[in-house]
This record gives sequence, C-alpha cells and structure tokens, in this order.
Amino acid sequence: MYFASDNSGPAHPAVMARVTEANAGYAMPYGADPIMDEVRDKMRAIFEAPDAAVYLVATGTAANALALACHTQPWQTIFCSPVSHIHEDECNAPEFYAGAAKLTLVPGGDKMTPDALRASIAYEEKRGVHGPQRGPVSITQVTERGGVYSLDELRALTEVAKEFDLPVHLDGARFANALAALGCSAAEMTWKLGVDVVSFGGTKNGCLGVEAVVIFDPEKAWEFELRRKRGAHLFSKHRYLSAQMAGYLSDNVWMGSAAAANANAARLSAGLRAHGAEFLHEPEANMIFARFPRRVHQKLHDAGAMYYVWEGSLEGDDPDELLAARLVCDWSMTPELIDQFLSHFEG
Amino acid sequence: MYFASDNSGPAHPAVMARVTEANAGYAMPYGADPIMDEVRDKMRAIFEAPDAAVYLVATGTAANALALACHTQPWQTIFCSPVSHIHEDECNAPEFYAGAAKLTLVPGGDKMTPDALRASIAYEEKRGVHGPQRGPVSITQVTERGGVYSLDELRALTEVAKEFDLPVHLDGARFANALAALGCSAAEMTWKLGVDVVSFGGTKNGCLGVEAVVIFDPEKAWEFELRRKRGAHLFSKHRYLSAQMAGYLSDNVWMGSAAAANANAARLSAGLRAHGAEFLHEPEANMIFARFPRRVHQKLHDAGAMYYVWEGSLEGDDPDELLAARLVCDWSMTPELIDQFLSHFEG
Amino acid sequence: MYFASDNSGPAHPAVMARVTEANAGYAMPYGADPIMDEVRDKMRAIFEAPDAAVYLVATGTAANALALACHTQPWQTIFCSPVSHIHEDECNAPEFYAGAAKLTLVPGGDKMTPDALRASIAYEEKRGVHGPQRGPVSITQVTERGGVYSLDELRALTEVAKEFDLPVHLDGARFANALAALGCSAAEMTWKLGVDVVSFGGTKNGCLGVEAVVIFDPEKAWEFELRRKRGAHLFSKHRYLSAQMAGYLSDNVWMGSAAAANANAARLSAGLRAHGAEFLHEPEANMIFARFPRRVHQKLHDAGAMYYVWEGSLEGDDPDELLAARLVCDWSMTPELIDQFLSHFEG
Amino acid sequence: MYFASDNSGPAHPAVMARVTEANAGYAMPYGADPIMDEVRDKMRAIFEAPDAAVYLVATGTAANALALACHTQPWQTIFCSPVSHIHEDECNAPEFYAGAAKLTLVPGGDKMTPDALRASIAYEEKRGVHGPQRGPVSITQVTERGGVYSLDELRALTEVAKEFDLPVHLDGARFANALAALGCSAAEMTWKLGVDVVSFGGTKNGCLGVEAVVIFDPEKAWEFELRRKRGAHLFSKHRYLSAQMAGYLSDNVWMGSAAAANANAARLSAGLRAHGAEFLHEPEANMIFARFPRRVHQKLHDAGAMYYVWEGSLEGDDPDELLAARLVCDWSMTPELIDQFLSHFEG
Repeated sequence: MYFASDNSGPAHPAVMARVTEANAGYAMPYGADPIMDEVRDKMRAIFEAPDAAVYLVATGTAANALALACHTQPWQTIFCSPVSHIHEDECNAPEFYAGAAKLTLVPGGDKMTPDALRASIAYEEKRGVHGPQRGPVSITQVTERGGVYSLDELRALTEVAKEFDLPVHLDGARFANALAALGCSAAEMTWKLGVDVVSFGGTKNGCLGVEAVVIFDPEKAWEFELRRKRGAHLFSKHRYLSAQMAGYLSDNVWMGSAAAANANAARLSAGLRAHGAEFLHEPEANMIFARFPRRVHQKLHDAGAMYYVWEGSLEGDDPDELLAARLVCDWSMTPELIDQFLSHFEG
Repeated sequence: MYFASDNSGPAHPAVMARVTEANAGYAMPYGADPIMDEVRDKMRAIFEAPDAAVYLVATGTAANALALACHTQPWQTIFCSPVSHIHEDECNAPEFYAGAAKLTLVPGGDKMTPDALRASIAYEEKRGVHGPQRGPVSITQVTERGGVYSLDELRALTEVAKEFDLPVHLDGARFANALAALGCSAAEMTWKLGVDVVSFGGTKNGCLGVEAVVIFDPEKAWEFELRRKRGAHLFSKHRYLSAQMAGYLSDNVWMGSAAAANANAARLSAGLRAHGAEFLHEPEANMIFARFPRRVHQKLHDAGAMYYVWEGSLEGDDPDELLAARLVCDWSMTPELIDQFLSHFEG
Repeated sequence: MYFASDNSGPAHPAVMARVTEANAGYAMPYGADPIMDEVRDKMRAIFEAPDAAVYLVATGTAANALALACHTQPWQTIFCSPVSHIHEDECNAPEFYAGAAKLTLVPGGDKMTPDALRASIAYEEKRGVHGPQRGPVSITQVTERGGVYSLDELRALTEVAKEFDLPVHLDGARFANALAALGCSAAEMTWKLGVDVVSFGGTKNGCLGVEAVVIFDPEKAWEFELRRKRGAHLFSKHRYLSAQMAGYLSDNVWMGSAAAANANAARLSAGLRAHGAEFLHEPEANMIFARFPRRVHQKLHDAGAMYYVWEGSLEGDDPDELLAARLVCDWSMTPELIDQFLSHFEG
Repeated sequence: MYFASDNSGPAHPAVMARVTEANAGYAMPYGADPIMDEVRDKMRAIFEAPDAAVYLVATGTAANALALACHTQPWQTIFCSPVSHIHEDECNAPEFYAGAAKLTLVPGGDKMTPDALRASIAYEEKRGVHGPQRGPVSITQVTERGGVYSLDELRALTEVAKEFDLPVHLDGARFANALAALGCSAAEMTWKLGVDVVSFGGTKNGCLGVEAVVIFDPEKAWEFELRRKRGAHLFSKHRYLSAQMAGYLSDNVWMGSAAAANANAARLSAGLRAHGAEFLHEPEANMIFARFPRRVHQKLHDAGAMYYVWEGSLEGDDPDELLAARLVCDWSMTPELIDQFLSHFEG
C-alpha cells in the first residue's frame, strides 16, 4: 500500500522492455541515436507541432530549469504559484539555471487565478530599471495539490501572460494525468492556448527517469542544447533516455498509465468520501489530500501503508482528531490494494 | 568495427540485469533506496575509505562539475591540462557550477608535469585581490590521449598541489581502465596520494549512464547533496542509478570490463605497430592515436569501420599520406573485430 | 521644495571639502590610502568593535549585495520584508551576488514581526534537500516606509534568527537617521543585538556616493575583498571614497545631518497633521507617507514642489479626493522650505 | 617621483572643479541628471556616433565586465591576450558578469596577432555543443605593456572577428593615451574598424573614478541598464559621475592630459635610452618597461622613487645586475620630476 508518491513505483514493463531492447550494439551518442528520431517524430505528432524542438533530460527539475532558462533573462522574475515545485522543491535550480533570476509568488493557493496573476505582473516593472523585470509565467498542470486547470482556466492565465507579452511555461510533470482528466489533446492544452514550452513528464508515469522538453519555437533549439550541455544534462549513451520515452509513447502506454493512475485515485477518493473523509482540495487527477481520524491513520500505519501525513502528527492522544494525508496513486497501484487500504476505515 | 568512442557501446549484461531486477515494487526515492546502501558500502570498501561520501549522478560532466564546485570558490581558478575534458568538452559546465570560476590551462600537453603545474600555481595570487585565487588541481586519469599517469607521476602532481594547500580532483571517467593499467588499488591511486575527490566513471565501461563522486572528506557531503539537487541531478527514481552501479561493482564486472577494454586496445596497438603505424601518444589504456596511410583509412571506411580521423582528411589525392586516427576500445569490442579491422592493413 | 528622495540632494560641505583636500599628490590605490586607515579607526570606534572589518563601496545596492553574499550560500534563501529594497529595488542584485540564492518575503508589511519571521524560517528546510535552505535575515533600519524598529523590536527579530543560527544583516542605508531617532549607540543597534553585518549608508545623508560595510567577524574580511573586486566595486583611486567617509564621520557630520533630516521631517509631519493629513505609516525618521486632498497636491505641484504621488493620480475631477504623497527630507532641507511647502495647505 | 601607476595620481583641477560646481541643489538621480545629457552629447560627438548608447560607471573593471556581458552568452568564450586586464586583474569579474563564460587566451604576448587570433577562434566550436562557443574578441588599447596597436593592426584583428561574425570590445582604460599616440579620431579607432563596444577610461587620466561604456548598437542600451543596476553599478547621485566626465571632456582636458602623460613617458624613455637602459617593450604611450642596473634602482629607491620592480629584486649582491622596472607616467607628472629621476642614473 504505497501512496507516498508517484516517483517511487516501478517502470512500466513496456518501457523497460524497450530499454532492454535498446541495449544492443553501438549507437551514436549525445542524442544522435535513431531512437531519438522516433521519439521526436512521435512527440511532434502528439503535439500536432511538426516544427517543435524536442529534447530529453533525466529529471523533472532539469526539464523545468532548462525550459525556464531559455525563456528568462537574469534580471527577470518568473510568475508562479506559491506552492509550485519550481519554488518549493528545486533548491533554487530555476534561479541557478536562469542566471540568478527571481521567482514571484502569485498570491493565493495552489491554482493561480487570472486576477492575482495580472496584479502580480502589473506590479513589477513599475520601478523601471530598479525592480525585477517581468519574465515567464509558469503554470503547473496537474497542480501540486492534485487539481487540474480546465482549458478555460488555462486560457484565462495564458491570456494574461499575453497581455504583457510574456512567455508561458507548463510544468507537466504529470502532463498525461492532466490530459486524461480533461479528455483533450496535447495541442489543445498547450500551444493552442499560447503555451510556449512544456515540461512533459515521463518519470512519474511509468519511466525510469526521463522527461521531455517541448519548445514550440524552434529558434530556441540551439540555445536549449547549449544550456543542456552546460548544465551537464546531455547523456552520452542517450539511447537509454530515448528508449524510455519511445516505449512510453508507444501503444498508448503513456495515456493508459495516466488513466489507470487517475482511476485508482478516483476509486480511492470515492472510498474516502464514503467513509466521511474531508478533502483539502478536490482531487482531479492522481493525488488526494484528505483528512480522517488519527485512529484510522494509526491502523493504516500499523498495516504498513506508506504516505505522507500532511497536517498533524500520528503521535497524539485524541483518536478522533483529524489528520490530513497526501495520497498519490501511480499507474502500478491496483484496485485490490486500494480496497485493502480502505478496509482500514471500517470497524 | 566501432572504435569511435567508449560512450556508444551497450551496457554490460550484468548491469542491465541488475537494472531489470530493480524494477519491482516501490523504492524510496532520491537516494534512500536500499541498493544505494549497497553501492555506498561497496565503494567504501573498494576505496578502503569507510567514511567517504559516495553519490551517483548520470553524466561525467555532472560528476566533474559538482565535484569541482564543492572544492572551488567563484573567485578561484582550477588548474588542468589544456586538453582536459573539463576545459574542452563541457561547454563551461565547471565554470557554471563553480559560480563563474576560471580554469587555468597548465602549459604543455596531455599530461601535466609537476614543474609546469608549480609554475602555473605560483604565478597566480601574485596580484593579490586582483587576480584569480588558486583553486583545485584537476588531473585526468586515464588522460584524454590515452595515457596513464604512474603512481609516481601522480604523486609528483599531488605534492605540488599540497605545497600550495590546494585540493586535488581526479577525473576518472576511465578510472577502472587506469587501475587495470597500473595494477594498483583504488586507494593507492587516490587518497593515499592526496586526492580529495574522484569522478568515478561507469558509463564508458559498461553502464547505461552512471558516475559516482567519491569525496574523502565527509564534511563536504551535505554541500554536495545541495549542489546536486540545485543542479537538477538528483534522481527521484534513484534506484535505477544505484542498480547500474551495484551491477557494475559486483562480481568484478568493473575491473573485468576495464581489463577487457585495455586488452582489446593492446591487441589493436600491437597490430598497428606491426603494420608500421606511428603513434601520436603511447597507448596505455583503451585509447589509441595512430597514423597510417590514407589508403588504409579508405579501405577501413569502405568496410564500415567507425572512428574519428584525428588529423587530416579522408579526402585527398595521396594514398600514402599519413592520417591520424583516434581508436577507442570498450569492454564489448572483440578480438575478432579487432583482427578484422587489422586485416585491412594487409595487401 | 524637493522632497522626492534623500538620494538627490547635494553633498555636505564638510564632505566635499575633505574630497577636495584629498585631491593632492599621489596616494596608494585600492584601499591602501592612509585616509582609509583613518576611516577604519573611526568606524571601529563608533561601533565599539576594534576587530570589525570595514570596507567602502559606492552604492547601497553594492553594500547590501556584497554583505549578503558573504553570509549566504547559493542554495539558501534570505528572509526579508516584502517591501525591502533588496527585493524591490535592486533588480536581482542580491540573487546575482549570492550565486542565485532566493529571497523569502516574510508575510506582513513594512516591518517584520518576530512571529511572521519565525513562521517563515520554520517553514523552510522542512523539505530537506529539496527546498531552499535557511539563510540570513535582512532587516531594514530605517524601514522603507519611514519606520524605526525599537531596540526591543530589533532584538525580537535577531533572537528569532539566532534560534535558527542564522546570520543577521542590517540594511542601514539610513543608519544615522535610525540612530538619531532611537538615541542609542551604533553598537547597541547592531552587534550587541546579534547583528553580524551592516550596510552603513553615507550617500543619502550627505555624501556623494559612499557606503560602508561593517562586518563584525573579521574572518569574513578576505572573502569580502575578493567578492568586492570580482563585483568590480574596488576603486583604484579609493581615496575619494575614503575622503567622503572621513568627512562624513568627522565633527559629527553624520549624526548632525541625520538629526537635521529627522527634525525636518518632524516639522513637516507636524504641519501636515495640523492640516488634517492622514498618515499611512507613523513617520519615525525622515520619510513621510501621508494623504491629503488633490487640490493641495495640485497647488504644490504648480508651485514646483517635487515628491512622489504614492497612491492615486494628480489627474482627476474630485478636488477633495485624498491622494498619498511620499515626502523625504534630507539634511539639506530647510525649515523655510518646509514652511513654504506647508503654506499651500492653507486657504 | 611616483611612477607606480596612473591610477594613483590626483584628479585634474578642471574635473574637480566641475564636481564641486555640480554639488549644488537637487538633481534627478540614477542618470537622469542634466549633466549626463551633456556628457552623452559630447561623447556622441567625439565618436561621431549620434545613436551610440553612453553610460557611466565608476571602475574600469565594471566597464569591461558590463560591456562584455552585453555581448557574451554564458556558454561562450571571450578571446583576449594572455596578459589582458580582464584575465589577469579582475578576479573573474568578466566570467561573473557574463554568467560563467570562459576566456580563451590567444597564444602570444601582449599584442594579439591576427593569425593567432584566427587560429584560436577557428579551434573553438569544432566540438559542437561540447566545447565553449565563440564569443567576443576583446582588444586592449593601450596594451598592458604600453604598446599601441596601429589602425592597421587593429583592423587586422577586427577583420578576423568579423570573419566569424563575432563582436569586438575595446578595453580603452587608456583610450585617450592611445588616441594621442596614433593621432587619429575616436571613430577611426573604433566603429570605423568594426569595434562594437568601448570601455572609455577616465580614472587613469585625470578623473576621480569614472569610465564610460560606449555601445554603438543602441539596441543593447536597455540590457546594459539592467545589467548595470543588477551589478550594483548604478549611482543614485549620478551627477558626480556625470560631472567628472563632463569636466574631463571639456576644453580638451582628456586629450591634453593624455598628451601630457605620453610626453612625460617619452621624455623618460629618451633619458633611459640615453643611459643605456634596455626596453622589454617599445614604449608607445605612457608606460615603460625597462631594465637597468641594481645600483641605480637602489639609488632611486633611497631617493623615494616609487615604481614596480617588474623582474628581479632590489635585494642582491651584484650591483650591475639588470632589473626591470615598470614606470607609468600620468598627466600630473612633471618634466622636473622626470629629470630628477633620471639624474640618479648619472655618476
């Protein structure tokens, strides 16, 4: 019963098979392997973007930091949610890669609102050369708290960015989960709304460690390549990144895994709801933040369930006190394990 | 007949098997996986350094840049060979990671000499606060031109560094090949001589993409972890790095592969010598730089042999003109292929 | 009637005289001039800190950015007020100098409160290596809105910093104005409370362009010198910085000017209060933020008074609408000009 | 008898007078002072470049580092002489400001030769994304060893840069001295040859501390302003920089001072030559590198003459051993002092 994160499960068998298959003979290094050609073609087809630049790196932080660096000047500020991964969980990597740029936390919660975003952007540059200059807007989809922006919500944000002529980055560490939740196309969720660059996650949804960066303006391609190399993220035996992504994009593995993860979370949240749990955020993809009594937590803990206690502590006298859990389902979670987890709420 | 680089061959079956085996169930992320405990223990045993900090990253450039950054201040300069990888092939990654530090190229060739190193170091800091300050000495072993410093040669360099109280970094992208060539222990080639930090290569010698950084002063450990995360080189599904290195270090795979690669190169250089080739550098590990006539190059080329023409061009009228080749043997090269390669020198 | 800023007035005659006097013959460059010895001695005496490292730079941003860089690692975050100069008015200079560190804006207004500071600090590092690490606390005294922390208020903040073992920086661009307001000693306002490093302003209070950085731990001295040089802030003809500061610190010029500026502001705020103005912040030094009717603004504007309209716009139909002004008095303002300014409120 | 450097003499009376005159009343801060308008107009007239962007900073290192940063990407390398100030005397400031770029030292001596420059440039980028990319060429005029490139020599270098489409920076810390030596116009020595950006020195030739950066492509202007602010080099009381430069550019002070300094050096070198001194470099402006016997050095030293012993040491037994001196004449040196210096060679 592992619900701690979707970054801790196994790779999908199809992905692993492709990696194993790739391990034969010699292959040109540094992204010149033929599997990368296949990946590039597939990704462009998925995004309906025949000119898009497509690159692979091994971590989500690398994807975000490099994607942002190509769209940020050192004297600018990146607009993002106060709980965004780029702010909270990357140990200043975006600042580092963007040459000491700043992040501006748009007031509010997990999801940015257009008004708050507009106010944040409008506030900057009022001080001319003295203040940080306006830089890209970074939107996380699926959000850090398991929400999914609707296409209308996304459009409202990208339109604000475009009012100010700012580029838009989509942190899609859980890109497929969002797509599965919305039932739209990759193009509809990105460049058709004005998104300029996407971090397209693979690791959390069935890969070993691979993320794509998709840049819709191919003129940024060479800069990205140089930044990737300089950041030490260019793999010599690149075929093993390519193979992961090729396996992931083949036979609908990526969308199938995301749908499975979302369905797992839906089953889990339905069960939690039935048992009276309170939700901190409405679960819309594969992450759940819910409160339930300490005694249930303790039973789950004793049974070996793994997840983060998000608020409060297992230690405490009151068995009825509500503690919040963060529960993440990945593609490999099974209905049986979910039901087993839920069984501890009974009795 | 692929002699272009040791970064383009397949992973060793034992390494791949370990990766496949690791792909089961859940594992703690970010280096907390149990396989990493095994790797750390093995590495400490190999280096006879029970307190050493051991970390994994996926590229050699990351290993070098992070290892150096932990031993360099932004106002210092790193002393290295003019043909070192950190200078020529990392697109300013060491400068980037070390906060805009400088590299000082010690005059001379592939191998640094103690006198040239001492003169370079002595020259700096004469201008007080104006000049760059003295920083670490970075030594490449196996060298970029296929040489191997003897222990005495290494000691002569580390002693110069210690005269000035400077840390020493060993770029061991081909660490095992050097060890196989010298027949000494890892400890004898490193900390016993005064080396402070090692980039311990795996990728070129049988892994998919993994390098270790071994830091002998454990007080640097936390800084390394923060720099690794900030550089976006901390893997969430870290077990796949751990598994590669665990497979590599098990059953003597690492030393066996290096010995095989070196033996392949010895067979090849013996054959070349027998056919009258001239050597630009004395081959001491698994890389050969040799000159032979254009007509042989052309035959090899037509037969599909892959390698870099290091000096000159295949295009040209004179069939007897000598062109230099760089020929690299990895662990997976076979005597049969080498003999097939050499057969083109006959007749 | 110039109330726009204290960075636009003339230099004090005593300061200018000292500069002119210094302009004779040769002087050792780069801070080795004898006037710097005098400055260092005076500053140490003022701070009752015989071992303090004392350096001069030409801008307040340089003083802040260099002072902070010596106390911040690139993976840390600096805690400060959301309206602090280092965040709002230095175009990412602190991030740049600190190697791409972050700034954490402590929720609240102009003055930080101990509880908000503690909560901000406590929040960081909960995510281990993933989040930014805790760095220095930067306190602005006089605050950006013209407030002055009492010694008790300062102590409450420095004690929070010390709970977490964090260094404390005091942005004293208006250091003398704060001292004049509190009537305490420089030592009492700094190291006796746990402040580690001070940006000691000169420019706004009678100099042409000079600020001191006073570091109480002399072990940081050499690092500061290297950072200053690397930041291009080391003057060759340093005597002209020294002479300004020497003139400023002589004959109580610095405290006399600050007292004059504060008295000017007190006269002005008393007058404004008498005329019914509303204060956005209680003026405690030489800056005033006050609301009064548009028609008065228009009269002042027509009479050539210069200041920032802080809220609202001179353009508008309603003559009674209250608009806020920022009014700053420097040492050179006179009672006559203040009374002339106030005369426009009458009738 | 002060020949140690031209950075240690007094400011020219006309410069100081202008600074004193500027110290009256209020002036708009941050470069919006009216004196800056005058400076900009004068500088554009001098350079016959009506659209040039003109900015002031206080140190030569700031001028160089900011000028270069506007023309360098972090993954590029700057081509320069191995003895250039930007390499030897700026403690990595160019690397810092250019976001961790590299410097490539063009083999040879003080003056770069076109062939060596071409070879250095040609060598880079052969390794594609792996190596540093080609960046600007930085030429020092007057050179560090007192040489002056002829217009033909300069053109030969700028043409090499243009072959590769690279921008050209001129480090003109002693710009006026070079102009005086060549007898050409500022335009002829810069943009007419293809120079893109100039560090135009004031400090060494009669100012307190001010340098201009002249950028011929006005599209770089805003980037420069942001980089200047972010580097903490934007002065609030900017009028004192403007006033220095205005005084310097008025009434031919700048060219008169340079001519005087060069004439002083010519008188000194003629005297040295007459006394049999050997010249390490042919003196072409205001710096002399010459060898003469230890006993003369000792007499000069005893008489209080100040200069750097460039090679060898005053300590030593052999009175006839030749030691090299670096002797720099600034505008304020007098024929009498020079003759007094030379008198120690007699008898």
